Amino acid sequence: MAKQRVLTGITTTGTPHLGNYVGAIRPAIAESKRGEFDAFFFLADYHALIKSHEPAMVHQSSREIAATWLALGLDTDSSTFYRQSDVPEITELSWILTCVCAKGLMNRSHAYKAAVQANEQNGDDPDFGVTMGLFSYPILMAADILMFNASKVPVGRDQIQHIEMARDMAQRFNHLYGDTFVLPEAVVDDVAVLSGLDGRKMSKSYGNTIPLFLPEKKLQKHINKIKTNLLEPGEPKNTDESTVFEVWQAFATPAQTADMRQKFADGIAWGQAKKELFELINSHIAPARERYEAILEDSQYLEVVLKKGAEKARSQAAPMLAAVRKAVGLAAFK
Amino acid sequence: MAKQRVLTGITTTGTPHLGNYVGAIRPAIAESKRGEFDAFFFLADYHALIKSHEPAMVHQSSREIAATWLALGLDTDSSTFYRQSDVPEITELSWILTCVCAKGLMNRSHAYKAAVQANEQNGDDPDFGVTMGLFSYPILMAADILMFNASKVPVGRDQIQHIEMARDMAQRFNHLYGDTFVLPEAVVDDVAVLSGLDGRKMSKSYGNTIPLFLPEKKLQKHINKIKTNLLEPGEPKNTDESTVFEVWQAFATPAQTADMRQKFADGIAWGQAKKELFELINSHIAPARERYEAILEDSQYLEVVLKKGAEKARSQAAPMLAAVRKAVGLAAFK
Repeated sequence: MAKQRVLTGITTTGTPHLGNYVGAIRPAIAESKRGEFDAFFFLADYHALIKSHEPAMVHQSSREIAATWLALGLDTDSSTFYRQSDVPEITELSWILTCVCAKGLMNRSHAYKAAVQANEQNGDDPDFGVTMGLFSYPILMAADILMFNASKVPVGRDQIQHIEMARDMAQRFNHLYGDTFVLPEAVVDDVAVLSGLDGRKMSKSYGNTIPLFLPEKKLQKHINKIKTNLLEPGEPKNTDESTVFEVWQAFATPAQTADMRQKFADGIAWGQAKKELFELINSHIAPARERYEAILEDSQYLEVVLKKGAEKARSQAAPMLAAVRKAVGLAAFK
Repeated sequence: MAKQRVLTGITTTGTPHLGNYVGAIRPAIAESKRGEFDAFFFLADYHALIKSHEPAMVHQSSREIAATWLALGLDTDSSTFYRQSDVPEITELSWILTCVCAKGLMNRSHAYKAAVQANEQNGDDPDFGVTMGLFSYPILMAADILMFNASKVPVGRDQIQHIEMARDMAQRFNHLYGDTFVLPEAVVDDVAVLSGLDGRKMSKSYGNTIPLFLPEKKLQKHINKIKTNLLEPGEPKNTDESTVFEVWQAFATPAQTADMRQKFADGIAWGQAKKELFELINSHIAPARERYEAILEDSQYLEVVLKKGAEKARSQAAPMLAAVRKAVGLAAFK
C-alpha cells in the first residue's frame, strides 16, 4: 500500500524560534526520519506576501527557515521539501479553484470574520485594511493541498476550517468536472505549546520569542529574560507556574526533568535554573547551530536543495495540473 | 519612439458572430495591419472558466475564435496572438496582485454589485451564486494588462472601471515595492453595435446572433429570420427602423448603402432585401470562411501559431515576473 501523503507549509514571515521547534519542526523531522508517510514540506512564501510587504524580511525568513530544517536533519530524499513559489502550477490551480469556489464560503472564513469584527468594534468599514490576499487565502491553501492530492494535513485547531474549505472546493470541482481530487482530511495536531519570555504563548506577534539559533551569548541573554517570580534562593518553587521549568521539560529527558523538579522543591535560585536551562538547550542546539550558520551562508547549496525539491514537487504537480486543465477545457487542440 | 502597446482579450465562451466581427474583430485586424501599435491579442480562457463550467464549449470556443482571427488575416508577426492559459506567469502575477489589492476595491465592482442587487431583488442571499471567480475577476484582468506593461486598453464603457482598478493595483504595488508597472489607460471604444435577429443588440446572451462563419445555406436561413415589419412589397420602408438595413450598412460601401436606401424608398420586398443582404455578406465572408474551415480542422497549425504567440508573450512576461518576484522578496538566494 502506498504511504499516505502528508503536507505541511511553513509561512516565511519570521525567524524560527524555540516554540516552532518544539511544537512543529522537531516532531515533523522525527516523523520524516521514521519514513512512515510520504511527507511534503514547503516554504509558504506566496502566503507570506499576504502578511508582509517587506521583501527583505520575506526573503530572509525563507532562507532562515530552509536552513533551519536542513540543519536539523530533514531527510530531503525521503521527503519532498520545496519553496512554494518554485512551483508555479500552484497559482494556476489556485485560479482554477477560484472559479469553482463560492464567495459565500470565503465570507465564512474565521480569519476574515475576525478582521471584520475588529473593524466593526473600532467603528471602521468592515473591510478596512482587508486585502484580497487575506480574503482568498483559503483558496491558495486548497491549491497547495489538492495540487499533490495530499490525504492528510496536520493542522492546529484554528486551521481545521481551511481543510474543510479545501474539501468543499475539491468536491465542487469533482462534481462539475468529474473525479479529479482526493478529499483531504485534517489531522488535528494538539501541538506542544511553549511559553515565551513573558509567560504568554511564544509567538512572533507577542514579541516574546527565543529564536532557535541565536549565538550562544545571545541565547543566554534571552533565557535570562524569561519572566520569573520574586522567590529568593532557598525558597521552594512551583514547577507548574514556571516558564523556566516548562521550557526545561521540552528539552530534558524524563530523568533530567525529575532532577529539576527536585531542585525546584529544594529552592534552586532562578539564576542557577536559567544557567542550567541555557546549558541544556545549548547542548541540544549547538551542533545544529553550527550547520545552520554554514548553510545560511551557502546560498548555492540552499538553491540546489530547494530546486531539487521543486523538481520533485513539479514532477507531481505537472501531470496533476495537466489533468485539471483538460477537465476544465484548457487542453491543447487535437 | 517605441510603439504604444495595446492589449485586447477575447473571452472564449462562444462562437464569433456578425456583431463581434463588425464591432471588434474587423477594426482590430485592420489596426494590426496598419501596424501603428504593438498589439497584443489573447484568448481569455482563464476568464472563460468564470462564465462557463462546460469544458467542451470553452475548448471549442477557443478553437473557433483562434481560427476566426487567423482566417480573417490577423498578422501574427507584427502582433502577439496567444492563449492566456499558455502564459502561466499571468496567474502567478494575479496572486501577487491579490496580496496588494484591497477587498473594498472588489466590493465596488459593477459586475459584482449587479449580481448582489439581482439577488436582493429575488430575496436571496446577496452572494447567492457568486463565485470567487466573478468577485476577483478584475485582479486577473489587471494581471493580463500589467504583465505586459500595456499602456492602452481598448474597452467598452462597461469595462472602464476594470482598467481603473488595474491602475489602482499598479499604483499600490509601485508604492509598496518601487516603480514596476506602467499605469494603463482605458481607450474607450464606442464600438459599432449591431442588432440581432430580434432587433435587440446582437449578443449570445439574447440568443439572437448570426454566427460569422455559418455555411452559406445556414447563413441565408439566419438572415431570413431577421425581424421585419409587415409592410408589403411596393410600400416604402424606413431605413432607420430596419435591422436589415443596419446590417447592410455595416458591410456595404457608401455607394451600396445609398443604393439600398433608394430601394427601401422604392418599396423593395423584405424577401428581396434579405436576399441581397445575404449575397453582400456572403461575398465578404466566403473567402475567409473557406480558410476558417480549413484552419478549424488543422489543430496542428493552430497549436503551432498559438505556441509561437505564447513564446513571444512569455519572452515579455518572464523578465517582468522575475522583476516582480524580486521586488516582493521571492528571488533566488544569492
